[in-house]
Amino acid sequence: MGIFSKDIKSMEDLFQHVLQDIYYAEQQIIKSLPKMIDKATNRELTTALKSHLAETEKQVSRLEQAFELLNQKPKGTTCPAIDGIIKEADELASEIADKKVLDAGILAAAQAVEHYEITRYGSLIAWASELEKEAIAKLLATTLAEEKAADKKLTTIAEKKVNLKAAG
Amino acid sequence: MGIFSKDIKSMEDLFQHVLQDIYYAEQQIIKSLPKMIDKATNRELTTALKSHLAETEKQVSRLEQAFELLNQKPKGTTCPAIDGIIKEADELASEIADKKVLDAGILAAAQAVEHYEITRYGSLIAWASELEKEAIAKLLATTLAEEKAADKKLTTIAEKKVNLKAAG
Repeated sequence: MGIFSKDIKSMEDLFQHVLQDIYYAEQQIIKSLPKMIDKATNRELTTALKSHLAETEKQVSRLEQAFELLNQKPKGTTCPAIDGIIKEADELASEIADKKVLDAGILAAAQAVEHYEITRYGSLIAWASELEKEAIAKLLATTLAEEKAADKKLTTIAEKKVNLKAAG
Repeated sequence: MGIFSKDIKSMEDLFQHVLQDIYYAEQQIIKSLPKMIDKATNRELTTALKSHLAETEKQVSRLEQAFELLNQKPKGTTCPAIDGIIKEADELASEIADKKVLDAGILAAAQAVEHYEITRYGSLIAWASELEKEAIAKLLATTLAEEKAADKKLTTIAEKKVNLKAAG
Protein backbone atom coordinates (compact mmCIF):
# COMPACT_ATOMS: atom_id res chain seq x y z
CA MET A 1 0.00 0.00 0.00
CA GLY A 2 2.94 2.22 -0.59
CA ILE A 3 3.66 5.22 1.55
CA PHE A 4 1.65 4.80 4.72
CA SER A 5 0.94 8.32 5.70
CA LYS A 6 -0.46 8.51 9.19
CA ASP A 7 -3.69 9.90 7.83
CA ILE A 8 -5.32 6.48 7.62
CA LYS A 9 -7.69 7.19 10.47
CA SER A 10 -11.01 5.71 9.38
CA MET A 11 -12.36 2.77 7.36
CA GLU A 12 -13.11 5.35 4.67
CA ASP A 13 -9.40 6.33 4.58
CA LEU A 14 -8.33 2.68 4.47
CA PHE A 15 -10.80 1.97 1.68
CA GLN A 16 -9.56 4.90 -0.40
CA HIS A 17 -5.95 4.00 0.24
CA VAL A 18 -6.39 0.43 -0.97
CA LEU A 19 -8.43 1.68 -3.93
CA GLN A 20 -5.41 3.82 -4.88
CA ASP A 21 -3.15 0.81 -4.30
CA ILE A 22 -5.08 -1.39 -6.72
CA TYR A 23 -5.39 1.48 -9.23
CA TYR A 24 -1.60 1.70 -9.29
CA ALA A 25 -1.35 -2.11 -9.41
CA GLU A 26 -3.70 -2.41 -12.42
CA GLN A 27 -1.64 0.16 -14.29
CA GLN A 28 1.57 -1.75 -13.60
CA ILE A 29 -0.17 -4.92 -14.80
CA ILE A 30 -1.14 -3.18 -18.06
CA LYS A 31 2.55 -2.34 -18.57
CA SER A 32 3.69 -5.84 -17.66
CA LEU A 33 1.21 -8.07 -19.54
CA PRO A 34 2.43 -7.19 -23.07
CA LYS A 35 5.94 -8.33 -22.08
CA MET A 36 4.53 -11.65 -20.85
CA ILE A 37 2.48 -12.00 -24.05
CA ASP A 38 5.59 -11.38 -26.18
CA LYS A 39 7.58 -14.03 -24.33
CA ALA A 40 4.88 -16.72 -24.08
CA THR A 41 4.75 -19.38 -26.78
CA ASN A 42 1.86 -21.67 -25.76
CA ARG A 43 -1.07 -20.46 -27.86
CA GLU A 44 -3.69 -20.97 -25.15
CA LEU A 45 -1.57 -19.06 -22.66
CA THR A 46 -1.03 -16.17 -25.11
CA THR A 47 -4.76 -16.01 -25.84
CA ALA A 48 -5.62 -16.03 -22.13
CA LEU A 49 -3.11 -13.25 -21.39
CA LYS A 50 -4.31 -11.11 -24.31
CA SER A 51 -7.91 -11.47 -23.23
CA HIS A 52 -6.91 -10.56 -19.67
CA LEU A 53 -5.10 -7.45 -20.90
CA ALA A 54 -8.33 -6.26 -22.55
CA GLU A 55 -10.20 -7.08 -19.33
CA THR A 56 -7.65 -5.19 -17.22
CA GLU A 57 -8.25 -2.04 -19.27
CA LYS A 58 -11.96 -2.32 -18.44
CA GLN A 59 -11.09 -2.89 -14.80
CA VAL A 60 -9.13 0.37 -14.73
CA SER A 61 -12.22 2.15 -16.12
CA ARG A 62 -14.31 0.60 -13.35
CA LEU A 63 -11.86 1.90 -10.76
CA GLU A 64 -12.13 5.35 -12.34
CA GLN A 65 -15.92 5.09 -12.01
CA ALA A 66 -15.43 4.14 -8.34
CA PHE A 67 -13.28 7.26 -7.76
CA GLU A 68 -15.96 9.32 -9.51
CA LEU A 69 -18.63 7.90 -7.18
CA LEU A 70 -16.40 9.06 -4.31
CA ASN A 71 -16.13 12.49 -5.96
CA GLN A 72 -12.41 12.01 -6.29
CA LYS A 73 -9.86 12.22 -9.04
CA PRO A 74 -8.39 8.77 -9.85
CA LYS A 75 -5.03 8.50 -8.13
CA GLY A 76 -2.55 5.69 -7.60
CA THR A 77 -0.28 5.01 -4.68
CA THR A 78 2.92 2.97 -4.96
CA CYS A 79 2.26 -0.64 -4.02
CA PRO A 80 5.40 -2.61 -3.04
CA ALA A 81 3.48 -5.90 -3.29
CA ILE A 82 2.59 -5.63 -6.98
CA ASP A 83 6.00 -4.14 -7.71
CA GLY A 84 7.60 -7.22 -6.14
CA ILE A 85 5.28 -9.65 -7.93
CA ILE A 86 5.94 -8.00 -11.30
CA LYS A 87 9.68 -7.77 -10.61
CA GLU A 88 9.71 -11.55 -10.17
CA ALA A 89 7.67 -12.02 -13.34
CA ASP A 90 9.94 -9.76 -15.41
CA GLU A 91 13.12 -11.36 -14.12
CA LEU A 92 11.68 -14.79 -14.77
CA ALA A 93 10.62 -13.92 -18.32
CA SER A 94 14.07 -12.61 -19.16
CA GLU A 95 16.12 -15.36 -17.58
CA ILE A 96 14.67 -18.63 -18.91
CA ALA A 97 15.65 -19.78 -22.37
CA ASP A 98 13.62 -23.00 -22.77
CA LYS A 99 10.16 -22.20 -24.15
CA LYS A 100 8.23 -24.79 -22.15
CA VAL A 101 9.88 -23.74 -18.88
CA LEU A 102 9.33 -20.10 -19.73
CA ASP A 103 5.61 -20.72 -20.39
CA ALA A 104 5.30 -22.48 -17.03
CA GLY A 105 7.05 -19.58 -15.29
CA ILE A 106 4.90 -16.96 -17.04
CA LEU A 107 1.77 -18.89 -16.17
CA ALA A 108 2.77 -19.02 -12.50
CA ALA A 109 3.69 -15.32 -12.51
CA ALA A 110 0.33 -14.40 -14.06
CA GLN A 111 -1.46 -16.44 -11.40
CA ALA A 112 0.47 -14.63 -8.64
CA VAL A 113 -0.76 -11.34 -10.13
CA GLU A 114 -4.35 -12.65 -10.27
CA HIS A 115 -4.25 -13.77 -6.65
CA TYR A 116 -3.01 -10.39 -5.50
CA GLU A 117 -5.90 -8.75 -7.29
CA ILE A 118 -8.40 -11.30 -5.95
CA THR A 119 -7.39 -10.63 -2.37
CA ARG A 120 -7.39 -6.84 -2.73
CA TYR A 121 -10.76 -6.67 -4.52
CA GLY A 122 -12.16 -9.09 -1.90
CA SER A 123 -11.18 -6.68 0.89
CA LEU A 124 -12.39 -3.63 -1.01
CA ILE A 125 -15.81 -5.18 -1.66
CA ALA A 126 -16.23 -6.12 2.03
CA TRP A 127 -15.27 -2.58 3.09
CA ALA A 128 -17.49 -0.95 0.43
CA SER A 129 -20.46 -2.92 1.80
CA GLU A 130 -19.53 -1.97 5.37
CA LEU A 131 -19.34 1.67 4.30
CA GLU A 132 -22.67 1.30 2.47
CA LYS A 133 -21.14 2.13 -0.89
CA GLU A 134 -23.21 -0.46 -2.72
CA ALA A 135 -22.68 0.95 -6.22
CA ILE A 136 -18.90 0.69 -5.79
CA ALA A 137 -19.19 -2.80 -4.25
CA LYS A 138 -21.14 -3.89 -7.34
CA LEU A 139 -18.58 -2.42 -9.77
CA LEU A 140 -15.71 -4.13 -7.98
CA ALA A 141 -17.62 -7.42 -7.74
CA THR A 142 -17.74 -7.53 -11.55
CA THR A 143 -13.96 -7.15 -11.63
CA LEU A 144 -13.47 -9.77 -8.91
CA ALA A 145 -15.52 -12.28 -10.90
CA GLU A 146 -13.29 -11.60 -13.94
CA GLU A 147 -10.11 -12.05 -11.91
CA LYS A 148 -11.34 -15.37 -10.51
CA ALA A 149 -12.30 -16.55 -14.00
CA ALA A 150 -8.88 -15.52 -15.36
CA ASP A 151 -7.13 -17.44 -12.57
CA LYS A 152 -9.32 -20.49 -13.22
CA LYS A 153 -8.53 -20.33 -16.93
CA LEU A 154 -4.79 -20.25 -16.17
CA THR A 155 -5.19 -23.22 -13.80
CA THR A 156 -6.96 -25.14 -16.57
CA ILE A 157 -4.08 -24.43 -18.96
CA ALA A 158 -1.55 -25.52 -16.32
CA GLU A 159 -3.48 -28.71 -15.54
CA LYS A 160 -4.02 -29.56 -19.20
CA LYS A 161 -0.25 -29.58 -19.71
CA VAL A 162 0.13 -31.90 -16.72
CA ASN A 163 -2.64 -34.20 -17.94
CA LEU A 164 -1.24 -34.37 -21.47
CA LYS A 165 2.08 -35.38 -19.97
CA ALA A 166 0.34 -37.99 -17.81
CA ALA A 167 -1.59 -39.31 -20.83
CA GLY A 168 1.50 -39.38 -23.01
CA MET B 1 11.75 -15.24 -7.20
CA GLY B 2 14.76 -13.24 -6.34
CA ILE B 3 17.95 -13.39 -8.28
CA PHE B 4 17.13 -15.06 -11.54
CA SER B 5 20.33 -16.73 -12.41
CA LYS B 6 20.32 -17.99 -15.97
CA ASP B 7 20.55 -21.54 -14.73
CA ILE B 8 16.80 -22.06 -14.80
CA LYS B 9 16.96 -24.40 -17.77
CA SER B 10 14.50 -27.18 -16.98
CA MET B 11 11.16 -27.67 -15.20
CA GLU B 12 13.19 -29.29 -12.43
CA ASP B 13 15.24 -26.07 -12.06
CA LEU B 14 12.07 -23.94 -12.06
CA PHE B 15 10.47 -26.23 -9.47
CA GLN B 16 13.48 -26.04 -7.18
CA HIS B 17 13.76 -22.29 -7.62
CA VAL B 18 10.14 -21.69 -6.62
CA LEU B 19 10.53 -24.15 -3.73
CA GLN B 20 13.41 -21.97 -2.49
CA ASP B 21 11.26 -18.89 -3.08
CA ILE B 22 8.41 -20.18 -0.89
CA TYR B 23 10.88 -21.47 1.74
CA TYR B 24 12.22 -17.92 2.06
CA ALA B 25 8.65 -16.56 2.00
CA GLU B 26 7.47 -18.85 4.84
CA GLN B 27 10.40 -17.74 6.97
CA GLN B 28 9.59 -14.09 6.40
CA ILE B 29 5.97 -14.84 7.32
CA ILE B 30 7.11 -16.46 10.59
CA LYS B 31 8.98 -13.24 11.40
CA SER B 32 6.05 -11.04 10.39
CA LEU B 33 3.06 -12.81 11.98
CA PRO B 34 4.01 -12.11 15.63
CA LYS B 35 4.06 -8.38 14.83
CA MET B 36 0.56 -8.65 13.33
CA ILE B 37 -0.62 -10.66 16.37
CA ASP B 38 0.74 -7.99 18.74
CA LYS B 39 -1.06 -5.20 16.91
CA ALA B 40 -4.40 -6.95 16.32
CA THR B 41 -7.17 -6.39 18.88
CA ASN B 42 -10.12 -8.41 17.56
CA ARG B 43 -9.98 -11.68 19.50
CA GLU B 44 -11.06 -13.88 16.63
CA LEU B 45 -8.43 -12.31 14.38
CA THR B 46 -5.70 -12.78 16.98
CA THR B 47 -6.69 -16.42 17.47
CA ALA B 48 -6.72 -17.05 13.71
CA LEU B 49 -3.27 -15.46 13.27
CA LYS B 50 -1.80 -17.40 16.23
CA SER B 51 -3.12 -20.66 14.88
CA HIS B 52 -1.73 -19.79 11.46
CA LEU B 53 1.69 -19.07 12.96
CA ALA B 54 1.76 -22.60 14.43
CA GLU B 55 0.64 -23.97 11.07
CA THR B 56 3.33 -22.01 9.22
CA GLU B 57 6.00 -23.63 11.38
CA LYS B 58 4.70 -27.04 10.30
CA GLN B 59 4.66 -25.86 6.69
CA VAL B 60 8.35 -24.97 6.91
CA SER B 61 9.04 -28.51 8.17
CA ARG B 62 7.12 -29.91 5.19
CA LEU B 63 9.26 -27.82 2.84
CA GLU B 64 12.35 -29.20 4.57
CA GLN B 65 11.01 -32.72 3.96
CA ALA B 66 10.51 -31.79 0.30
CA PHE B 67 14.14 -30.64 0.02
CA GLU B 68 15.19 -33.91 1.68
CA LEU B 69 13.20 -35.90 -0.88
CA LEU B 70 15.16 -33.98 -3.55
CA ASN B 71 18.39 -34.84 -1.71
CA GLN B 72 19.02 -31.17 -1.16
CA LYS B 73 19.79 -28.93 1.77
CA PRO B 74 16.89 -26.55 2.49
CA LYS B 75 17.76 -23.18 1.00
CA GLY B 76 15.85 -19.95 0.50
CA THR B 77 16.07 -17.43 -2.29
CA THR B 78 15.05 -13.79 -1.91
CA CYS B 79 11.49 -13.28 -3.04
CA PRO B 80 10.62 -9.66 -3.90
CA ALA B 81 6.90 -10.50 -3.95
CA ILE B 82 6.62 -11.62 -0.32
CA ASP B 83 9.02 -8.84 0.72
CA GLY B 84 6.66 -6.32 -0.90
CA ILE B 85 3.54 -7.88 0.60
CA ILE B 86 5.08 -7.93 4.10
CA LYS B 87 6.46 -4.40 3.69
CA GLU B 88 2.91 -3.21 3.06
CA ALA B 89 1.64 -5.17 6.06
CA ASP B 90 4.33 -3.79 8.39
CA GLU B 91 3.84 -0.22 7.25
CA LEU B 92 0.09 -0.59 7.64
CA ALA B 93 0.37 -2.04 11.13
CA SER B 94 2.58 0.83 12.26
CA GLU B 95 0.67 3.67 10.67
CA ILE B 96 -2.96 3.22 11.75
CA ALA B 97 -4.00 4.34 15.20
CA ASP B 98 -7.68 3.35 15.29
CA LYS B 99 -8.06 -0.26 16.49
CA LYS B 100 -10.96 -1.22 14.24
CA VAL B 101 -9.26 0.19 11.13
CA LEU B 102 -6.00 -1.47 12.12
CA ASP B 103 -7.74 -4.86 12.50
CA ALA B 104 -9.28 -4.45 9.05
CA GLY B 105 -5.88 -3.56 7.57
CA ILE B 106 -4.15 -6.49 9.30
CA LEU B 107 -6.86 -8.86 8.13
CA ALA B 108 -6.44 -7.68 4.53
CA ALA B 109 -2.65 -7.93 4.79
CA ALA B 110 -2.86 -11.48 6.15
CA GLN B 111 -5.16 -12.43 3.28
CA ALA B 112 -2.68 -11.01 0.75
CA VAL B 113 -0.01 -13.25 2.32
CA GLU B 114 -2.33 -16.29 2.15
CA HIS B 115 -3.12 -15.66 -1.50
CA TYR B 116 0.54 -15.43 -2.40
CA GLU B 117 1.12 -18.79 -0.74
CA ILE B 118 -1.96 -20.33 -2.35
CA THR B 119 -0.78 -19.39 -5.84
CA ARG B 120 2.82 -20.55 -5.29
CA TYR B 121 1.84 -23.90 -3.72
CA GLY B 122 -0.69 -24.38 -6.53
CA SER B 123 2.06 -24.02 -9.14
CA LEU B 124 4.49 -26.19 -7.17
CA ILE B 125 1.94 -29.02 -6.83
CA ALA B 126 1.17 -28.95 -10.58
CA TRP B 127 4.90 -29.04 -11.39
CA ALA B 128 5.62 -31.78 -8.82
CA SER B 129 2.95 -33.96 -10.50
CA GLU B 130 4.37 -33.17 -13.92
CA LEU B 131 7.83 -34.14 -12.67
CA GLU B 132 6.37 -37.30 -11.09
CA LYS B 133 7.37 -36.24 -7.59
CA GLU B 134 4.16 -37.53 -6.04
CA ALA B 135 5.44 -37.63 -2.45
CA ILE B 136 6.34 -33.93 -2.64
CA ALA B 137 3.04 -33.08 -4.37
CA LYS B 138 1.20 -34.77 -1.47
CA LEU B 139 3.21 -32.89 1.19
CA LEU B 140 2.55 -29.55 -0.48
CA ALA B 141 -1.13 -30.37 -1.02
CA THR B 142 -1.53 -30.64 2.78
CA THR B 143 -0.04 -27.17 3.12
CA LEU B 144 -2.21 -25.76 0.32
CA ALA B 145 -5.35 -27.06 2.05
CA GLU B 146 -4.24 -25.30 5.26
CA GLU B 147 -3.57 -22.03 3.42
CA LYS B 148 -7.01 -22.13 1.79
CA ALA B 149 -8.66 -22.87 5.15
CA ALA B 150 -6.75 -19.99 6.78
CA ASP B 151 -7.87 -17.60 4.03
CA LYS B 152 -11.48 -18.80 4.37
CA LYS B 153 -11.34 -18.29 8.14
CA LEU B 154 -10.10 -14.70 7.62
CA THR B 155 -12.89 -14.08 5.09
CA THR B 156 -15.43 -15.33 7.64
CA ILE B 157 -14.06 -12.90 10.25
CA ALA B 158 -14.16 -10.03 7.74
CA GLU B 159 -17.73 -10.86 6.69
CA LYS B 160 -18.92 -11.29 10.26
CA LYS B 161 -17.85 -7.74 11.03
CA VAL B 162 -19.75 -6.51 7.99
CA ASN B 163 -22.85 -8.49 8.90
CA LEU B 164 -22.83 -7.29 12.50
CA LYS B 165 -22.69 -3.75 11.19
CA ALA B 166 -25.58 -4.47 8.82
CA ALA B 167 -27.62 -6.06 11.64
CA GLY B 168 -26.78 -3.27 14.09
